[in-house]
Amino acid sequence: MNQKKAVVLVSGGLDSATILAIAKTQEFECYALSFDYGQRHRAELDAARVVAETMQAQEHRIIQIGLDAFGGSALTDPNIAVPTTQNDGIPVTYVPARNTVFLALALGWAEVLQASDIFIGINAVDYSGYPDCRPEFIKAFQTMANLATKSAIEGQPIEIHTPLIALSKAEIIEFGTKLGVDYSLTVSCYSADEFGQACGSCDSCRFRQEGFKQAGIADPTRYR
Amino acid sequence: MNQKKAVVLVSGGLDSATILAIAKTQEFECYALSFDYGQRHRAELDAARVVAETMQAQEHRIIQIGLDAFGGSALTDPNIAVPTTQNDGIPVTYVPARNTVFLALALGWAEVLQASDIFIGINAVDYSGYPDCRPEFIKAFQTMANLATKSAIEGQPIEIHTPLIALSKAEIIEFGTKLGVDYSLTVSCYSADEFGQACGSCDSCRFRQEGFKQAGIADPTRYR
Repeated sequence: MNQKKAVVLVSGGLDSATILAIAKTQEFECYALSFDYGQRHRAELDAARVVAETMQAQEHRIIQIGLDAFGGSALTDPNIAVPTTQNDGIPVTYVPARNTVFLALALGWAEVLQASDIFIGINAVDYSGYPDCRPEFIKAFQTMANLATKSAIEGQPIEIHTPLIALSKAEIIEFGTKLGVDYSLTVSCYSADEFGQACGSCDSCRFRQEGFKQAGIADPTRYR
Repeated sequence: MNQKKAVVLVSGGLDSATILAIAKTQEFECYALSFDYGQRHRAELDAARVVAETMQAQEHRIIQIGLDAFGGSALTDPNIAVPTTQNDGIPVTYVPARNTVFLALALGWAEVLQASDIFIGINAVDYSGYPDCRPEFIKAFQTMANLATKSAIEGQPIEIHTPLIALSKAEIIEFGTKLGVDYSLTVSCYSADEFGQACGSCDSCRFRQEGFKQAGIADPTRYR
Protein backbone atom coordinates (compact mmCIF):
# COMPACT_ATOMS: atom_id res chain seq x y z
CA MET A 1 0.00 0.00 0.00
CA ASN A 2 1.19 3.49 -0.83
CA GLN A 3 2.04 5.82 2.02
CA LYS A 4 -0.74 8.34 2.73
CA LYS A 5 0.09 11.85 1.59
CA ALA A 6 -0.49 15.02 3.59
CA VAL A 7 -0.07 18.68 2.73
CA VAL A 8 1.58 20.39 5.70
CA LEU A 9 1.51 24.19 6.00
CA VAL A 10 5.06 25.15 6.97
CA SER A 11 5.62 28.82 7.77
CA GLY A 12 9.11 28.47 9.20
CA GLY A 13 7.80 29.11 12.70
CA LEU A 14 7.79 26.97 15.80
CA ASP A 15 4.23 25.63 15.49
CA SER A 16 4.52 24.46 11.90
CA ALA A 17 7.83 22.66 12.52
CA THR A 18 6.03 20.81 15.30
CA ILE A 19 3.11 19.73 13.07
CA LEU A 20 5.54 18.53 10.42
CA ALA A 21 7.11 16.30 13.09
CA ILE A 22 3.66 15.12 14.18
CA ALA A 23 2.55 14.33 10.61
CA LYS A 24 5.73 12.30 10.14
CA THR A 25 5.16 10.30 13.33
CA GLN A 26 1.68 9.54 11.95
CA GLU A 27 3.48 8.09 8.91
CA PHE A 28 2.27 10.58 6.35
CA GLU A 29 4.38 11.37 3.31
CA CYS A 30 4.63 15.12 3.85
CA TYR A 31 4.29 17.82 1.19
CA ALA A 32 5.37 21.10 2.76
CA LEU A 33 3.65 24.26 1.54
CA SER A 34 4.70 27.83 2.26
CA PHE A 35 3.48 31.20 1.05
CA ASP A 36 5.24 34.28 -0.13
CA TYR A 37 2.52 36.86 0.47
CA GLY A 38 4.52 40.01 0.82
CA GLN A 39 5.17 39.43 4.51
CA ARG A 40 7.80 41.56 6.14
CA HIS A 41 9.30 38.66 8.02
CA ARG A 42 10.78 36.99 4.95
CA ALA A 43 13.37 35.25 7.11
CA GLU A 44 10.44 32.89 7.85
CA LEU A 45 10.56 31.63 4.27
CA ASP A 46 14.27 30.84 4.56
CA ALA A 47 13.51 29.03 7.81
CA ALA A 48 10.66 27.15 6.09
CA ARG A 49 13.10 25.87 3.44
CA VAL A 50 15.57 24.69 6.10
CA VAL A 51 12.82 23.09 8.22
CA ALA A 52 11.26 21.26 5.22
CA GLU A 53 14.64 19.97 4.09
CA THR A 54 16.01 19.03 7.52
CA MET A 55 12.79 17.26 8.46
CA GLN A 56 12.74 15.45 5.11
CA ALA A 57 9.49 16.62 3.57
CA GLN A 58 8.86 14.82 0.27
CA GLU A 59 8.52 18.16 -1.52
CA HIS A 60 8.44 21.81 -0.54
CA ARG A 61 6.69 24.48 -2.58
CA ILE A 62 6.45 28.20 -2.00
CA ILE A 63 3.41 29.77 -3.61
CA GLN A 64 3.36 33.47 -4.35
CA ILE A 65 0.17 35.38 -3.55
CA GLY A 66 -0.19 39.13 -3.89
CA LEU A 67 -1.92 39.63 -0.51
CA ASP A 68 0.05 42.83 0.01
CA ALA A 69 -2.07 44.45 -2.73
CA PHE A 70 -4.93 44.58 -0.21
CA GLY A 71 -2.97 46.25 2.59
CA GLY A 72 -4.65 46.37 5.98
CA SER A 73 -2.07 44.46 8.06
CA ALA A 74 1.15 45.39 9.81
CA LEU A 75 2.63 42.14 8.48
CA THR A 76 2.34 43.19 4.84
CA ASP A 77 1.76 46.95 4.85
CA PRO A 78 4.87 49.07 5.49
CA ASN A 79 2.63 51.97 6.57
CA ILE A 80 1.41 50.09 9.66
CA ALA A 81 3.92 49.59 12.50
CA VAL A 82 4.37 46.19 14.15
CA PRO A 83 3.22 46.72 17.75
CA THR A 84 5.48 45.84 20.66
CA THR A 85 2.88 45.99 23.42
CA GLN A 86 -0.10 43.76 24.05
CA ASN A 87 -3.50 45.31 23.39
CA ASP A 88 -6.99 43.96 23.78
CA GLY A 89 -8.90 42.75 20.75
CA ILE A 90 -7.66 41.67 17.35
CA PRO A 91 -4.15 43.02 16.65
CA VAL A 92 -3.05 44.90 13.52
CA THR A 93 -0.76 41.97 12.71
CA TYR A 94 -3.92 40.13 11.62
CA VAL A 95 -3.76 39.43 7.86
CA PRO A 96 -7.26 39.48 6.36
CA ALA A 97 -8.57 35.98 5.63
CA ARG A 98 -5.04 34.56 5.80
CA ASN A 99 -5.82 31.06 7.04
CA THR A 100 -8.80 30.84 4.69
CA VAL A 101 -6.53 31.67 1.74
CA PHE A 102 -3.74 29.33 2.93
CA LEU A 103 -6.09 26.40 3.54
CA ALA A 104 -7.78 27.01 0.17
CA LEU A 105 -4.41 26.73 -1.58
CA ALA A 106 -3.47 23.68 0.48
CA LEU A 107 -6.75 22.15 -0.66
CA GLY A 108 -5.83 22.79 -4.29
CA TRP A 109 -2.46 21.09 -3.93
CA ALA A 110 -3.98 18.22 -1.94
CA GLU A 111 -6.39 17.61 -4.76
CA VAL A 112 -3.62 17.51 -7.37
CA LEU A 113 -1.57 15.15 -5.16
CA GLN A 114 -4.64 13.04 -4.34
CA ALA A 115 -3.94 13.71 -0.68
CA SER A 116 -6.89 13.91 1.69
CA ASP A 117 -5.08 15.26 4.74
CA ILE A 118 -3.98 18.81 5.51
CA PHE A 119 -2.03 19.81 8.62
CA ILE A 120 -2.10 23.37 9.94
CA GLY A 121 -0.32 24.52 13.08
CA ILE A 122 -2.91 26.88 14.49
CA ASN A 123 -3.75 27.00 18.16
CA ALA A 124 -6.65 28.57 19.93
CA VAL A 125 -4.94 29.11 23.27
CA ASP A 126 -2.20 31.62 22.49
CA TYR A 127 -4.03 32.67 19.36
CA SER A 128 -3.50 36.41 19.59
CA GLY A 129 -7.20 37.00 18.90
CA TYR A 130 -7.20 35.77 15.30
CA PRO A 131 -10.73 34.58 14.41
CA ASP A 132 -9.43 32.05 11.87
CA CYS A 133 -7.50 30.14 14.56
CA ARG A 134 -10.61 28.80 16.27
CA PRO A 135 -11.89 25.20 16.10
CA GLU A 136 -15.30 26.30 14.79
CA PHE A 137 -13.59 27.98 11.84
CA ILE A 138 -11.61 24.81 11.01
CA LYS A 139 -14.73 22.65 11.26
CA ALA A 140 -16.61 24.96 8.87
CA PHE A 141 -13.66 25.00 6.47
CA GLN A 142 -13.58 21.21 6.40
CA THR A 143 -17.33 21.05 5.68
CA MET A 144 -16.88 23.53 2.82
CA ALA A 145 -13.82 21.67 1.47
CA ASN A 146 -15.79 18.46 1.26
CA LEU A 147 -18.31 20.19 -1.02
CA ALA A 148 -15.65 22.00 -3.06
CA THR A 149 -13.49 19.30 -4.53
CA LYS A 150 -13.62 16.64 -7.16
CA SER A 151 -11.80 14.21 -4.83
CA ALA A 152 -14.27 14.69 -1.99
CA ILE A 153 -17.18 14.14 -4.36
CA GLU A 154 -15.51 11.00 -5.61
CA GLY A 155 -15.32 9.61 -2.08
CA GLN A 156 -12.02 10.83 -0.62
CA PRO A 157 -13.06 13.28 2.11
CA ILE A 158 -10.66 15.97 3.24
CA GLU A 159 -9.53 16.09 6.84
CA ILE A 160 -7.99 19.24 8.32
CA HIS A 161 -5.63 18.26 11.15
CA THR A 162 -4.95 20.82 13.87
CA PRO A 163 -2.98 18.83 16.45
CA LEU A 164 -1.89 21.97 18.32
CA ILE A 165 -5.28 23.62 18.56
CA ALA A 166 -5.82 22.95 22.28
CA LEU A 167 -2.19 23.24 23.40
CA SER A 168 -0.45 26.18 25.02
CA LYS A 169 2.85 27.38 23.56
CA ALA A 170 4.66 25.63 26.44
CA GLU A 171 2.89 22.33 25.72
CA ILE A 172 3.72 22.62 21.99
CA ILE A 173 7.39 23.15 22.82
CA GLU A 174 7.44 20.21 25.24
CA PHE A 175 5.71 17.94 22.71
CA GLY A 176 7.95 19.00 19.80
CA THR A 177 11.11 18.66 21.88
CA LYS A 178 10.12 15.04 22.67
CA LEU A 179 9.71 14.45 18.91
CA GLY A 180 13.19 15.85 18.30
CA VAL A 181 12.27 19.16 16.65
CA ASP A 182 15.25 21.51 16.45
CA TYR A 183 13.61 24.86 17.28
CA SER A 184 16.81 26.76 16.58
CA LEU A 185 15.93 26.34 12.87
CA THR A 186 12.59 28.13 13.27
CA VAL A 187 11.75 31.83 13.13
CA SER A 188 8.60 33.21 14.79
CA CYS A 189 9.44 36.91 15.01
CA TYR A 190 7.18 39.35 13.11
CA SER A 191 10.20 41.50 12.32
CA ALA A 192 13.15 39.12 12.14
CA ASP A 193 16.21 40.45 10.33
CA GLU A 194 17.67 38.92 7.17
CA PHE A 195 19.69 36.46 9.26
CA GLY A 196 16.56 35.19 11.00
CA GLN A 197 17.45 36.96 14.25
CA ALA A 198 14.43 37.85 16.38
CA CYS A 199 13.47 41.21 17.89
CA GLY A 200 12.41 39.72 21.21
CA SER A 201 9.63 42.26 21.71
CA CYS A 202 6.77 41.62 19.22
CA ASP A 203 3.68 39.56 20.20
CA SER A 204 5.05 36.48 18.52
CA CYS A 205 8.46 36.72 20.23
CA ARG A 206 6.85 37.23 23.61
CA PHE A 207 4.56 34.19 23.27
CA ARG A 208 7.56 32.13 22.21
CA GLN A 209 9.84 33.31 25.04
CA GLU A 210 7.11 32.71 27.59
CA GLY A 211 6.53 29.22 26.13
CA PHE A 212 10.15 28.12 26.55
CA LYS A 213 10.19 29.60 30.05
CA GLN A 214 7.00 27.79 31.11
CA ALA A 215 8.19 24.53 29.56
CA GLY A 216 11.47 24.81 31.44
CA ILE A 217 13.37 24.28 28.18
CA ALA A 218 16.31 26.46 27.13
CA ASP A 219 15.28 28.98 24.45
CA PRO A 220 17.45 28.39 21.35
CA THR A 221 16.09 31.48 19.55
CA ARG A 222 18.72 33.74 18.02
CA TYR A 223 17.99 37.27 19.23
CA ARG A 224 19.70 40.28 17.73
CA MET B 1 -25.34 57.19 4.39
CA ASN B 2 -22.36 55.74 2.56
CA GLN B 3 -23.00 53.53 -0.43
CA LYS B 4 -22.61 49.81 0.38
CA LYS B 5 -19.46 48.25 -1.01
CA ALA B 6 -19.25 44.91 -2.79
CA VAL B 7 -16.31 42.90 -4.06
CA VAL B 8 -17.22 41.56 -7.50
CA LEU B 9 -15.18 38.73 -9.04
CA VAL B 10 -14.61 39.80 -12.64
CA SER B 11 -12.91 37.24 -14.87
CA GLY B 12 -13.48 39.02 -18.15
CA GLY B 13 -16.08 36.45 -19.17
CA LEU B 14 -19.77 36.78 -19.94
CA ASP B 15 -21.07 35.72 -16.53
CA SER B 16 -18.94 38.07 -14.46
CA ALA B 17 -19.79 41.09 -16.65
CA THR B 18 -23.43 40.26 -15.97
CA ILE B 19 -22.98 40.14 -12.19
CA LEU B 20 -21.12 43.44 -12.24
CA ALA B 21 -24.18 44.94 -13.98
CA ILE B 22 -26.48 43.29 -11.41
CA ALA B 23 -24.42 44.54 -8.44
CA LYS B 24 -24.59 48.05 -9.88
CA THR B 25 -28.39 47.91 -10.31
CA GLN B 26 -28.51 46.90 -6.62
CA GLU B 27 -26.64 50.16 -5.92
CA PHE B 28 -23.44 48.65 -4.63
CA GLU B 29 -20.16 50.50 -5.02
CA CYS B 30 -18.28 47.80 -6.92
CA TYR B 31 -14.69 46.70 -6.32
CA ALA B 32 -13.71 44.43 -9.21
CA LEU B 33 -11.24 41.64 -8.44
CA SER B 34 -9.44 39.47 -11.00
CA PHE B 35 -6.75 36.82 -10.70
CA ASP B 36 -3.63 36.14 -12.64
CA TYR B 37 -3.15 32.47 -11.82
CA GLY B 38 -1.09 31.28 -14.75
CA GLN B 39 -4.17 30.70 -16.89
CA ARG B 40 -3.59 30.13 -20.58
CA HIS B 41 -6.45 32.39 -21.58
CA ARG B 42 -4.76 35.60 -20.51
CA ALA B 43 -6.90 37.56 -22.95
CA GLU B 44 -9.51 37.20 -20.20
CA LEU B 45 -7.47 39.53 -17.97
CA ASP B 46 -7.37 42.19 -20.70
CA ALA B 47 -11.13 41.78 -21.07
CA ALA B 48 -11.53 42.07 -17.27
CA ARG B 49 -9.72 45.42 -17.34
CA VAL B 50 -11.96 46.72 -20.12
CA VAL B 51 -15.14 45.40 -18.49
CA ALA B 52 -14.26 46.91 -15.07
CA GLU B 53 -13.43 50.28 -16.61
CA THR B 54 -16.35 50.45 -19.05
CA MET B 55 -18.82 49.42 -16.37
CA GLN B 56 -17.33 51.94 -13.93
CA ALA B 57 -16.13 49.76 -11.10
CA GLN B 58 -14.79 51.90 -8.25
CA GLU B 59 -11.48 50.02 -8.34
CA HIS B 60 -10.07 47.01 -10.17
CA ARG B 61 -7.29 44.86 -8.78
CA ILE B 62 -5.56 41.88 -10.32
CA ILE B 63 -4.02 39.56 -7.74
CA GLN B 64 -1.26 37.19 -8.73
CA ILE B 65 -1.43 33.63 -7.39
CA GLY B 66 1.01 30.90 -8.38
CA LEU B 67 -1.69 28.23 -8.94
CA ASP B 68 0.23 26.93 -11.95
CA ALA B 69 2.87 25.58 -9.53
CA PHE B 70 0.39 22.82 -8.64
CA GLY B 71 -0.35 21.76 -12.22
CA GLY B 72 -3.27 19.36 -12.70
CA SER B 73 -5.46 21.47 -15.01
CA ALA B 74 -5.55 22.08 -18.75
CA LEU B 75 -6.16 25.77 -17.98
CA THR B 76 -2.79 26.24 -16.29
CA ASP B 77 -0.67 23.23 -17.28
CA PRO B 78 0.77 23.36 -20.82
CA ASN B 79 1.18 19.55 -20.74
CA ILE B 80 -2.59 18.98 -20.67
CA ALA B 81 -4.53 19.76 -23.87
CA VAL B 82 -7.75 21.81 -23.76
CA PRO B 83 -10.47 19.39 -24.89
CA THR B 84 -12.72 20.24 -27.81
CA THR B 85 -15.32 17.53 -27.26
CA GLN B 86 -17.79 17.09 -24.40
CA ASN B 87 -17.08 14.21 -22.03
CA ASP B 88 -18.94 12.91 -19.03
CA GLY B 89 -17.71 13.79 -15.55
CA ILE B 90 -15.49 16.59 -14.36
CA PRO B 91 -13.40 18.00 -17.22
CA VAL B 92 -9.62 18.51 -17.20
CA THR B 93 -10.26 22.26 -17.45
CA TYR B 94 -11.18 22.08 -13.74
CA VAL B 95 -8.67 24.09 -11.69
CA PRO B 96 -8.23 22.53 -8.23
CA ALA B 97 -10.04 24.50 -5.54
CA ARG B 98 -10.27 27.54 -7.81
CA ASN B 99 -13.47 29.08 -6.52
CA THR B 100 -12.42 28.35 -2.92
CA VAL B 101 -9.17 30.24 -3.51
CA PHE B 102 -10.89 33.11 -5.37
CA LEU B 103 -13.60 33.55 -2.75
CA ALA B 104 -11.00 33.39 0.03
CA LEU B 105 -9.09 36.26 -1.57
CA ALA B 106 -12.30 38.19 -2.19
CA LEU B 107 -13.04 37.74 1.50
CA GLY B 108 -9.65 39.22 2.38
CA TRP B 109 -10.22 42.30 0.25
CA ALA B 110 -13.81 42.65 1.50
CA GLU B 111 -12.50 42.72 5.04
CA VAL B 112 -9.95 45.44 4.25
CA LEU B 113 -12.62 47.49 2.43
CA GLN B 114 -15.18 46.85 5.19
CA ALA B 115 -17.46 45.39 2.55
CA SER B 116 -19.81 42.61 3.55
CA ASP B 117 -20.97 41.57 0.09
CA ILE B 118 -19.21 39.43 -2.49
CA PHE B 119 -20.60 38.71 -5.98
CA ILE B 120 -19.51 35.65 -7.94
CA GLY B 121 -20.87 34.68 -11.35
CA ILE B 122 -21.12 30.94 -10.96
CA ASN B 123 -24.06 28.98 -12.24
CA ALA B 124 -25.11 25.46 -11.46
CA VAL B 125 -27.00 24.82 -14.71
CA ASP B 126 -24.30 25.01 -17.39
CA TYR B 127 -21.65 24.37 -14.75
CA SER B 128 -19.47 21.97 -16.70
CA GLY B 129 -19.37 19.57 -13.76
CA TYR B 130 -17.32 21.80 -11.44
CA PRO B 131 -18.11 20.88 -7.81
CA ASP B 132 -17.39 24.40 -6.56
CA CYS B 133 -20.19 25.88 -8.69
CA ARG B 134 -22.99 24.32 -6.65
CA PRO B 135 -25.27 26.17 -4.21
CA GLU B 136 -24.33 23.85 -1.32
CA PHE B 137 -20.68 24.81 -1.77
CA ILE B 138 -21.52 28.53 -1.67
CA LYS B 139 -23.67 28.10 1.42
CA ALA B 140 -20.84 26.25 3.22
CA PHE B 141 -18.33 28.90 2.14
CA GLN B 142 -20.53 31.66 3.56
CA THR B 143 -20.87 29.81 6.89
CA MET B 144 -17.09 29.41 7.03
CA ALA B 145 -16.50 33.07 6.07
CA ASN B 146 -18.67 34.22 8.92
CA LEU B 147 -16.42 32.38 11.37
CA ALA B 148 -13.20 33.45 9.67
CA THR B 149 -13.20 37.21 9.77
CA LYS B 150 -12.78 40.01 12.22
CA SER B 151 -15.64 41.93 10.55
CA ALA B 152 -18.10 39.03 10.83
CA ILE B 153 -17.21 38.58 14.50
CA GLU B 154 -17.76 42.28 15.03
CA GLY B 155 -21.27 42.03 13.60
CA GLN B 156 -20.96 42.60 9.86
CA PRO B 157 -21.83 39.21 8.35
CA ILE B 158 -20.58 38.30 4.88
CA GLU B 159 -23.05 37.53 2.14
CA ILE B 160 -21.98 35.65 -0.99
CA HIS B 161 -24.24 36.68 -3.89
CA THR B 162 -24.68 34.25 -6.77
CA PRO B 163 -27.44 35.86 -8.84
CA LEU B 164 -26.77 33.58 -11.83
CA ILE B 165 -26.73 30.29 -9.97
CA ALA B 166 -30.10 29.03 -11.18
CA LEU B 167 -30.00 30.57 -14.67
CA SER B 168 -29.11 28.91 -17.96
CA LYS B 169 -26.57 30.60 -20.22
CA ALA B 170 -29.44 31.82 -22.42
CA GLU B 171 -31.23 33.35 -19.43
CA ILE B 172 -28.02 35.05 -18.28
CA ILE B 173 -27.55 36.57 -21.74
CA GLU B 174 -31.18 37.76 -21.89
CA PHE B 175 -30.93 39.28 -18.40
CA GLY B 176 -27.57 40.98 -19.06
CA THR B 177 -28.72 42.32 -22.42
CA LYS B 178 -31.69 43.98 -20.70
CA LEU B 179 -29.23 45.57 -18.24
CA GLY B 180 -27.19 46.92 -21.14
CA VAL B 181 -24.12 44.65 -20.85
CA ASP B 182 -21.92 44.84 -23.94
CA TYR B 183 -20.92 41.20 -24.37
CA SER B 184 -18.55 42.03 -27.21
CA LEU B 185 -16.13 43.21 -24.49
CA THR B 186 -16.09 39.80 -22.79
CA VAL B 187 -13.95 36.74 -23.48
CA SER B 188 -15.08 33.26 -22.41
CA CYS B 189 -12.85 31.05 -24.58
CA TYR B 190 -10.42 28.70 -22.78
CA SER B 191 -7.86 29.29 -25.53
CA ALA B 192 -8.52 32.80 -26.82
CA ASP B 193 -5.68 34.37 -28.78
CA GLU B 194 -3.84 37.52 -27.69
CA PHE B 195 -6.48 39.68 -29.40
CA GLY B 196 -9.28 38.04 -27.38
CA GLN B 197 -10.53 36.09 -30.40
CA ALA B 198 -12.28 32.85 -29.49
CA CYS B 199 -11.65 29.33 -30.80
CA GLY B 200 -15.35 28.48 -31.10
CA SER B 201 -14.80 24.84 -30.17
CA CYS B 202 -13.89 24.52 -26.45
CA ASP B 203 -16.53 23.76 -23.77
CA SER B 204 -16.77 27.40 -22.81
CA CYS B 205 -17.22 28.61 -26.41
CA ARG B 206 -19.87 26.00 -27.09
CA PHE B 207 -21.91 26.91 -23.98
CA ARG B 208 -21.69 30.55 -24.96
CA GLN B 209 -22.67 30.02 -28.62
CA GLU B 210 -25.60 27.85 -27.57
CA GLY B 211 -26.66 30.52 -25.06
CA PHE B 212 -26.88 33.30 -27.65
CA LYS B 213 -28.68 30.95 -30.03
CA GLN B 214 -31.27 29.91 -27.42
CA ALA B 215 -31.74 33.51 -26.30
CA GLY B 216 -32.35 34.57 -29.90
CA ILE B 217 -29.73 37.31 -29.51
CA ALA B 218 -27.00 37.95 -32.09
CA ASP B 219 -23.64 36.56 -30.89
CA PRO B 220 -21.13 39.46 -30.74
CA THR B 221 -18.20 37.13 -29.96
CA ARG B 222 -15.10 37.69 -32.06
CA TYR B 223 -14.07 34.29 -33.46
CA ARG B 224 -10.74 33.76 -35.14
